[in-house]
Amino acid sequence: MAEDESPDKMTIIAFSGDLDKLWPTMILSSTGAASGLDVTVFHTFWGLFPLVRDDVRVTGDNAMTKMLAGMNPPGFQRAKLSKLNMGGAGKWMMRRLAGQHKVMPPEDLFDICLDMGVKIWPCQMTMDLLGIRPDQLRPGLGEPAGAATALSEMSRSKIQLFI
Amino acid sequence: MAEDESPDKMTIIAFSGDLDKLWPTMILSSTGAASGLDVTVFHTFWGLFPLVRDDVRVTGDNAMTKMLAGMNPPGFQRAKLSKLNMGGAGKWMMRRLAGQHKVMPPEDLFDICLDMGVKIWPCQMTMDLLGIRPDQLRPGLGEPAGAATALSEMSRSKIQLFI
Amino acid sequence: MAEDESPDKMTIIAFSGDLDKLWPTMILSSTGAASGLDVTVFHTFWGLFPLVRDDVRVTGDNAMTKMLAGMNPPGFQRAKLSKLNMGGAGKWMMRRLAGQHKVMPPEDLFDICLDMGVKIWPCQMTMDLLGIRPDQLRPGLGEPAGAATALSEMSRSKIQLFI
Repeated sequence: MAEDESPDKMTIIAFSGDLDKLWPTMILSSTGAASGLDVTVFHTFWGLFPLVRDDVRVTGDNAMTKMLAGMNPPGFQRAKLSKLNMGGAGKWMMRRLAGQHKVMPPEDLFDICLDMGVKIWPCQMTMDLLGIRPDQLRPGLGEPAGAATALSEMSRSKIQLFI
Repeated sequence: MAEDESPDKMTIIAFSGDLDKLWPTMILSSTGAASGLDVTVFHTFWGLFPLVRDDVRVTGDNAMTKMLAGMNPPGFQRAKLSKLNMGGAGKWMMRRLAGQHKVMPPEDLFDICLDMGVKIWPCQMTMDLLGIRPDQLRPGLGEPAGAATALSEMSRSKIQLFI
Repeated sequence: MAEDESPDKMTIIAFSGDLDKLWPTMILSSTGAASGLDVTVFHTFWGLFPLVRDDVRVTGDNAMTKMLAGMNPPGFQRAKLSKLNMGGAGKWMMRRLAGQHKVMPPEDLFDICLDMGVKIWPCQMTMDLLGIRPDQLRPGLGEPAGAATALSEMSRSKIQLFI
């Protein structure tokens, strides 16, 4: 019975930190929560960077991790398009188009997700690897979790997506 | 019982418009339909561009959306590889290799999918955002749908993939 | 009943051959197997290249496939980052960071997966298309399989991911 007791779960692995992939993650999560799904999003690898607070300019605990964060700036606002970013022009256009059509930016959808009870978990291993400290992440997140926890959540979910 | 009444559904979110990702989407969809699965493909974001008719050169309803479509030409035939595209040479080679090994191009697999009853849904929000009109899309598609509809379809599916 | 008899399966479609995506594939697979899941990984398209043996420098059976393999060198060791690869510097840094934090490289996780009974299947169509022969692949893999087999495995799995 164990698996059938929570039939309304969705788990998303948010691997990408690109703006164009943050949108479907946040739209599916907030829409899912609004439809009554119990939603968990596990942010790992590049997907962890957007969860860094806006006032943190660079993360990392050594030359390598600082350099990676320097080239891949953290925070929702700094997320780039995976293609046609054009030095920020594509990103700017996409955000502007979204605004014109009343599509909320990912950072606002993130707030709505938290309000609606979506569980947003940072990946512990990625935090260690990239030298990102808990106090550098946005408030409201769940405890850092590992692959075993994410798998357990997925195995009890009706919908699992890797984005 | 609702969820168990349609145990043979597969839902794919076709987010990417790249040639190399259109292939698995179309191969899994047509093979799934041939195996008796009830298949739905929800084309969103970059994944909507390939569904534009071949005779439509540029989509968009303002300078920004026209420019995006100009840099990311619509239609299956114009889809690029996500890597090693090499100004079209990689794409040309991959299509040629496929032809030599009797692997159908995505546009032919799309036709087969429609023939086999695969439901192909354009994302309403993407159409609004990118200024793509219904009459610019290939015939045979389902009504434009939103995230809530896609989620509902996924929650009743045994297989859900984000490609 | 057929679908409910094996409730503890996970199937991953490993489409990407990038180093940063090989990690989640191999971490989820090995962790899943350790948690008692019956895991199958279907390596297709770019995802087939990492399975080529380290001593095979170039694969392919004609000028085009040799050229593609030359530009996308096969083997786990030669896999690049999908972004910030920086001519190999990013890849080198990420492997070094992983080593410092006791995160095993994908090729070692692959060995552990095999030891733990994870089924790793090469895609037959990709082998044909790219001219990769069975003897060029690492030992321990399952028989080459097609989309229908992968779909059948997925439809009997609680977790399906496209990575």
